Amino acid sequence: MAVDWKQSIDVFTGAPYTLGQAQNHISQGPLGGRITWAQQSPLEYLGSLSSPSDTKAFDATVLAHSLWYFSSPSLILATFRALRKHSKRLYLAEWALSAADPSAQPHVLAALAQAALEWHKHNSTSNIRTVLAPKRLIELASEAGWQLESESRVQSGEGLLDGQWEVDACLSERFEREAMDLVKNERERGVVLALRDACQASVDGTRACGQKLRSMDVWVGSFV
Amino acid sequence: MAVDWKQSIDVFTGAPYTLGQAQNHISQGPLGGRITWAQQSPLEYLGSLSSPSDTKAFDATVLAHSLWYFSSPSLILATFRALRKHSKRLYLAEWALSAADPSAQPHVLAALAQAALEWHKHNSTSNIRTVLAPKRLIELASEAGWQLESESRVQSGEGLLDGQWEVDACLSERFEREAMDLVKNERERGVVLALRDACQASVDGTRACGQKLRSMDVWVGSFV
Repeated sequence: MAVDWKQSIDVFTGAPYTLGQAQNHISQGPLGGRITWAQQSPLEYLGSLSSPSDTKAFDATVLAHSLWYFSSPSLILATFRALRKHSKRLYLAEWALSAADPSAQPHVLAALAQAALEWHKHNSTSNIRTVLAPKRLIELASEAGWQLESESRVQSGEGLLDGQWEVDACLSERFEREAMDLVKNERERGVVLALRDACQASVDGTRACGQKLRSMDVWVGSFV
Repeated sequence: MAVDWKQSIDVFTGAPYTLGQAQNHISQGPLGGRITWAQQSPLEYLGSLSSPSDTKAFDATVLAHSLWYFSSPSLILATFRALRKHSKRLYLAEWALSAADPSAQPHVLAALAQAALEWHKHNSTSNIRTVLAPKRLIELASEAGWQLESESRVQSGEGLLDGQWEVDACLSERFEREAMDLVKNERERGVVLALRDACQASVDGTRACGQKLRSMDVWVGSFV
């Protein structure tokens, strides 16, 4: 099975490959023997390691497009702190909330709209549970003792479909129904719906220019 | 006193002219004799009119960039309903929450960020107290019995400074301080700050292209 990494993989809905299929592919590759899969939350996993010594267990930890799945900023902070004890370096990659190309702006607005709705749910299963810009991630990492060494922004490739997926979710009838059900204050509900309407306007503008939706920029940060 | 309408007038801080100065200028013009200034809330004013008859008191009502100052969507609905009894036509002009030019996108994000903070204040004195996209304004007008006759979007002129003002307010230290003070839920606070950070990223992107910030598009709607 050849995984085309240019094509985005939605491992949770299993399109085009499930998480299990992707892991199996990697395990059967040349580096498979060096890989152990741990299906635990990061904090659970780190807590199960032996006490940290002077020699940290890991040369580096990579958190790639995973932080927005965390349930709160404080859980991200706790995880950064636990990693500090076990890892020499920390590499982060996350959506940047910026759009170098205007056709990626709908994705930015869709992410913000979803986040404005999701915090009302106690047990969110959305792709966007906690939305944090690079600035906040750097602040949290710093609070946990990590020092930013370098950072960069990368424009998403045209074939990356996440922007389209998140826009679809934001503009779905389900989103509007949930906003009506979950957001009780009419002024706040107005803000959530305005975010959705701004996303729709941004989509309309992109299409009027004859352009396809793109995914937003990605931020990468390296910490020691 | 010559008012250059291409230059935006912030009547509330009185720059470049106060509201009183602007009204005085108009009253002394050729149409001054036909103008009565009423310094009341629209609902108070409409309530003081004699009971509606078959002949409505006003040929038309214009609400120009005023609806976002209303304290809630339901107050806008009540005002639209009261106007229905006294006015033959309704003309609305309001920020469209769209940016035909990408350099107006920071204004869209600044407006949404401010609205996400302002609903926490019981007595907001901000320029943005209730944010509603054209779609919602049409829904509210329809609910009040008005029928949309025509609508259009207009790109803001380059000299219109409202976008810059709202971006300045969003990126101010005061905004961040208020977000920390007023928004108690850390997940929700994350959303408010992410909106601000997305506004900053949008400003940075606009400047990186060597462009000045513009104000967002304006929507105009005509109802009967």
